[in-house]
Amino acid sequence: MVGGGEGAFIGAVHRSAAGLDNALDLVCGAFASDAERSRRSGANLGLPPERCYADFNSMFAAEAELPADERMEFVAIVTPNNLHLAVASAAFKHGFHVLSDKPATTTLAECFQLRDAQQASGCLYGLTHPYGSYPLIVEAAERVRAGALGTIRKVIVEYTQGWLAEPIERRGQKQAIWRLDPKRAGLSSCMGDIGVHAFHLAEFVTNLRTTELCADLNSIVAGRELDDDGAAFLRFDNGARGVLVASQICTGDENDLRLRIYGDAASLDWRQEEPNSLWLKHAHKPIELIRSGGTNFGAAARAHSRLPAGHPEGYLEAFANVYRNFAAQVRAHGAGANGDPAPRGVPGIKAALRGMAFIETVVAASKSAQKWHAFPSIAD
Amino acid sequence: MVGGGEGAFIGAVHRSAAGLDNALDLVCGAFASDAERSRRSGANLGLPPERCYADFNSMFAAEAELPADERMEFVAIVTPNNLHLAVASAAFKHGFHVLSDKPATTTLAECFQLRDAQQASGCLYGLTHPYGSYPLIVEAAERVRAGALGTIRKVIVEYTQGWLAEPIERRGQKQAIWRLDPKRAGLSSCMGDIGVHAFHLAEFVTNLRTTELCADLNSIVAGRELDDDGAAFLRFDNGARGVLVASQICTGDENDLRLRIYGDAASLDWRQEEPNSLWLKHAHKPIELIRSGGTNFGAAARAHSRLPAGHPEGYLEAFANVYRNFAAQVRAHGAGANGDPAPRGVPGIKAALRGMAFIETVVAASKSAQKWHAFPSIAD
Amino acid sequence: MVGGGEGAFIGAVHRSAAGLDNALDLVCGAFASDAERSRRSGANLGLPPERCYADFNSMFAAEAELPADERMEFVAIVTPNNLHLAVASAAFKHGFHVLSDKPATTTLAECFQLRDAQQASGCLYGLTHPYGSYPLIVEAAERVRAGALGTIRKVIVEYTQGWLAEPIERRGQKQAIWRLDPKRAGLSSCMGDIGVHAFHLAEFVTNLRTTELCADLNSIVAGRELDDDGAAFLRFDNGARGVLVASQICTGDENDLRLRIYGDAASLDWRQEEPNSLWLKHAHKPIELIRSGGTNFGAAARAHSRLPAGHPEGYLEAFANVYRNFAAQVRAHGAGANGDPAPRGVPGIKAALRGMAFIETVVAASKSAQKWHAFPSIAD
Amino acid sequence: MVGGGEGAFIGAVHRSAAGLDNALDLVCGAFASDAERSRRSGANLGLPPERCYADFNSMFAAEAELPADERMEFVAIVTPNNLHLAVASAAFKHGFHVLSDKPATTTLAECFQLRDAQQASGCLYGLTHPYGSYPLIVEAAERVRAGALGTIRKVIVEYTQGWLAEPIERRGQKQAIWRLDPKRAGLSSCMGDIGVHAFHLAEFVTNLRTTELCADLNSIVAGRELDDDGAAFLRFDNGARGVLVASQICTGDENDLRLRIYGDAASLDWRQEEPNSLWLKHAHKPIELIRSGGTNFGAAARAHSRLPAGHPEGYLEAFANVYRNFAAQVRAHGAGANGDPAPRGVPGIKAALRGMAFIETVVAASKSAQKWHAFPSIAD
Repeated sequence: MVGGGEGAFIGAVHRSAAGLDNALDLVCGAFASDAERSRRSGANLGLPPERCYADFNSMFAAEAELPADERMEFVAIVTPNNLHLAVASAAFKHGFHVLSDKPATTTLAECFQLRDAQQASGCLYGLTHPYGSYPLIVEAAERVRAGALGTIRKVIVEYTQGWLAEPIERRGQKQAIWRLDPKRAGLSSCMGDIGVHAFHLAEFVTNLRTTELCADLNSIVAGRELDDDGAAFLRFDNGARGVLVASQICTGDENDLRLRIYGDAASLDWRQEEPNSLWLKHAHKPIELIRSGGTNFGAAARAHSRLPAGHPEGYLEAFANVYRNFAAQVRAHGAGANGDPAPRGVPGIKAALRGMAFIETVVAASKSAQKWHAFPSIAD
Repeated sequence: MVGGGEGAFIGAVHRSAAGLDNALDLVCGAFASDAERSRRSGANLGLPPERCYADFNSMFAAEAELPADERMEFVAIVTPNNLHLAVASAAFKHGFHVLSDKPATTTLAECFQLRDAQQASGCLYGLTHPYGSYPLIVEAAERVRAGALGTIRKVIVEYTQGWLAEPIERRGQKQAIWRLDPKRAGLSSCMGDIGVHAFHLAEFVTNLRTTELCADLNSIVAGRELDDDGAAFLRFDNGARGVLVASQICTGDENDLRLRIYGDAASLDWRQEEPNSLWLKHAHKPIELIRSGGTNFGAAARAHSRLPAGHPEGYLEAFANVYRNFAAQVRAHGAGANGDPAPRGVPGIKAALRGMAFIETVVAASKSAQKWHAFPSIAD
Repeated sequence: MVGGGEGAFIGAVHRSAAGLDNALDLVCGAFASDAERSRRSGANLGLPPERCYADFNSMFAAEAELPADERMEFVAIVTPNNLHLAVASAAFKHGFHVLSDKPATTTLAECFQLRDAQQASGCLYGLTHPYGSYPLIVEAAERVRAGALGTIRKVIVEYTQGWLAEPIERRGQKQAIWRLDPKRAGLSSCMGDIGVHAFHLAEFVTNLRTTELCADLNSIVAGRELDDDGAAFLRFDNGARGVLVASQICTGDENDLRLRIYGDAASLDWRQEEPNSLWLKHAHKPIELIRSGGTNFGAAARAHSRLPAGHPEGYLEAFANVYRNFAAQVRAHGAGANGDPAPRGVPGIKAALRGMAFIETVVAASKSAQKWHAFPSIAD
Repeated sequence: MVGGGEGAFIGAVHRSAAGLDNALDLVCGAFASDAERSRRSGANLGLPPERCYADFNSMFAAEAELPADERMEFVAIVTPNNLHLAVASAAFKHGFHVLSDKPATTTLAECFQLRDAQQASGCLYGLTHPYGSYPLIVEAAERVRAGALGTIRKVIVEYTQGWLAEPIERRGQKQAIWRLDPKRAGLSSCMGDIGVHAFHLAEFVTNLRTTELCADLNSIVAGRELDDDGAAFLRFDNGARGVLVASQICTGDENDLRLRIYGDAASLDWRQEEPNSLWLKHAHKPIELIRSGGTNFGAAARAHSRLPAGHPEGYLEAFANVYRNFAAQVRAHGAGANGDPAPRGVPGIKAALRGMAFIETVVAASKSAQKWHAFPSIAD
């Protein structure tokens, strides 16, 4: 693991997620930019001192020297965005697969560099969009592909939070400080941090691709350099329309990611805060409530669930699915089956490129007086 | 009543709403463009033949001749939009107050004519936006004005329906036929029919005024001349941002009007389909659920409610509040207290003008390649 | 109307319910035991002085003398329970049909007297259990009869309120005073006021009959002579088991009547506070949400609904259904079709007897050290 | 671990729960009564063959011989109920702490034996009632103890499932077979499996003790020797009344454990299927929704939560809290701080005795014609 030392949030989430299935162990880390803090963080996690590295370059170099059955299988990157490219490139150079936190990089150009480095290395790359690994999102994606909604016409995806409604970055809140700092976060705070999750979820479940967008981003709290609120109209390649709302200043909202997809035969509705329920509304049948683990819960979704119906699964379980799927892909790759470019449920470099394209386009579109902006073409 | 004959929807709603408090009786009507249908409709409603008129002009002329204690107190207009101006103008000419269905007219220019006719007559004008008369919307409006949310920063208002997801206008569904016919509906179907409710609700509760907007309207179902789906970004006069979504092609959605308002101190959330609950989310206190009739339910809201907590009130009760408030204003006016330009809860000619301005602007903005469009200035 | 003068609650509900469809007018009343208060109440309701009677006996005598097209069609009784028998008997004696608030009387013996008086008169009798007239309860009853649940095995019916959690009867709250007074309420407060609604709803929807029960009634708030809380186990004639909970001391609860019925093929779940949703849970299909006015909403339910899906209907609409159904029965009776002993949706004298039998049995069972008590046999 | 081999349900839950915090490793097991199956199960879990034992006696004997830093710290018992006493006694004999699945034993007498064995050994004993370790249940328990509800008057606890609505035990479903077999399950299926969870939750959160009960247990599905449905009235030591409903034949219900506690100042409501929301209803303030991780979320609850508000935590996280708390207690005990008889959130031998007393009393009461039955006195 690179990053995730004392005081970090997402590092602990990654570690719990990895541990949930008792199939992955944390074996080493460069947890902080400061060697002493890195070592102390590792010690608190039960690692021996020699596997707590002062920096990621030393880690990759040293681990690469270890016997295959001792060295790490892949690296999880949980640093601020500005380090993602450097860490991942170094990992690839030493032959390590990479599971990286989102967004992939700070610019689309960087992301193309990342792609080139990955392709050159032959290593695997995964991006942690955990919302895509909830059992009922897997179910939704399967049903959409099977035609349950008919032709998709309209998508509404929202992701509202309230944690940045006050200027907590000026009160020393670490998570807020780096996310609102262009040097570490990149072009965007709100769209880069949560808008990109919403975007990815919409494209993943609909199986459609955005072709154009119109955007309005705002810095609502005075003094911020980056956006903390925004919305976009989307147009998809089949002609469907979309509305995407993302905001971090929605006082009282927690982590309210919601996806609605309307087809001509049926529609679906899912909310992350109650992730074990998926609503299916038909044109000519009663509304159905699909429950995780319940009747008519499909095989793919079942493979992403650990418990019978009524035993709620949450965010860590979804995140654990990312780890489980990525580890499965890594092991298959090691076993020679390296042909699988899109392991089940783990977005790869293509999703990374589309996410960065979204962030860049939405930021540019917001600044423009012109309504519609083409979405960069990323070969699928 | 003008309009609302056999087969109409909203006429029956108006009559139930008027009857709910046993304080208003239907006394006469021109229910249909055809004299015989009008008479038959009236007879079914228990009216004597001499009060069932062949057309609205005859009705106003004849009623105006009746003694004051026999003739109608005011007229309710429930025709398709294209007749609103003519009927209202004729009513004003004969000295009758008007309670009209929305939208006020088919164009903003017509609406200015309506305003002039009303001002010349000295009569009262009310517009039926019943959603503004739900008890908890009255409560919300009061709390916003009392500062409960702090400074408003963001508004999300959505109104999604699924009833036009299929081309039912081609299967003879009367409500659909006229709403999608530019000659009778005006410039817009979706925005004119439901978007304008959402717009009015947002301005009414926030007490803010829209200054600019950006819009994307669509005719999703092939062959329609008017929009059946749309969205807009709004900018308000205090700098707040808004997102408005209105759609009639959201398969499986019923009448899902939802309003969220985010301030810097708290936010609120209300859904028309569960109208007896209002959510208040604070920055530093637990979420509160305000219930109609419950603890901390204010006096203004209480005046719009008839039952103790837990006895659900719905759409007809909200509509009945419009009638009750308008009748109270009419009677106060008759008693000489004619100075009240904005009777409690009944939007008047200013709201009518703003609604038409919204429809015109959103339609124009959608057709334009330019992002932002100024909202016409309507003196308050 | 008898009862329902100034300060009463349910009288106003009856009047709104009767007015909702513009098909019934209040024509006369004996609104209070005091002649002057009765007259004043009537005047406030717009009645002429000569139709505001000093007492119910005078009213029936005077109204019976009026021409058929002027005199009242039936009487609504909204007094405290102890007067129900006397008023209804007097009405029957003068040939007036009776629509009475529940419970029918104060004892089962009184209720048999009521039945005899009704049978002797040939008049109609209806009991206002408005919860049975919600559209989705009608839907539920139809589906149960059509076998949608299979064999019913278990019923859970709850009715919890919090309004008597404090001793408001000692602070002058009129509704509380008479309901907790054995002289006016009869044997029971909680079971007599709301338990009997729950009992009726369970028997009505399941179409089963209680054969035995075990009960635990309590006077939680010190100083009360009657129960304010209770629960019962029920056994039904097909072997199904039931649990009934009724309480008036559930702090914070409003009017939380909920019915769950479990069959071997499916189960249903309905809550009065969100009456436009009915849940259907199948053994081998996804959960269905039946919405009032929505897809698969049956004809009988549709006849009890006035609005399209998504336009919420509430308590007054359900109550108006009782009036509409009773008025239809009265008019059919007047037209000679007097053979209908169970007009759609209006419980009659059999339901009245079963309700009183429930109250007596549950009170007796609670006082006994013996577990099970037979439910009195009431010929259906 | 003893039990939890191939095909078992709860063993995998225990292992995921233990792994979630990366602080506990499974080191050995006797996973099945058959040596070969035990070995194979262990191999699948990544254990070396020498730590996969043929039976629990060999395991305890062998592990006790290992150096302290290699041998297991405590044993988790996840067998059917009839083995709990034997396994735990053997563990105690070899000086191992025990974390056991519930119910503790098959009879109250056995449970007293268990207590004697534990007391003689000086080892720790914990019982896995995971519902008591949900963050908001910890919050609820804290608030009740702090007086937030005032004096508790009424408790309604329900636990309904539908998985045994059909005779799946005759179709080979393993979980059903042993739970409905008196030899392996003990006196009761429904009350022993889920009723005891409901009972424990009610006593834990209210901090009250049951003194009397009245019960009605049923075997709804033909051919079952044990109950699959039941209900009880409870009386608590402060005079409060309770209703407990538990059923496994509620078609369509999943794992619907719900707890409502009514005090004279406020009440609370919690549902396991949406465990991150806790409702607090006040006599004179608006309803509050306490969210896990949200505003006013207390320190004790926070210690049982891993994520910020809006990131749902579920059943595995609650179960992981049991493991974390028990491991903390074990380690404190090892460090000499063995005086803590009730480690945070892990029910111990007293809860085990009360649970078995509940099962025995409710079964006996159901068979009796007498209404009330005293709850056995268990010294606290």
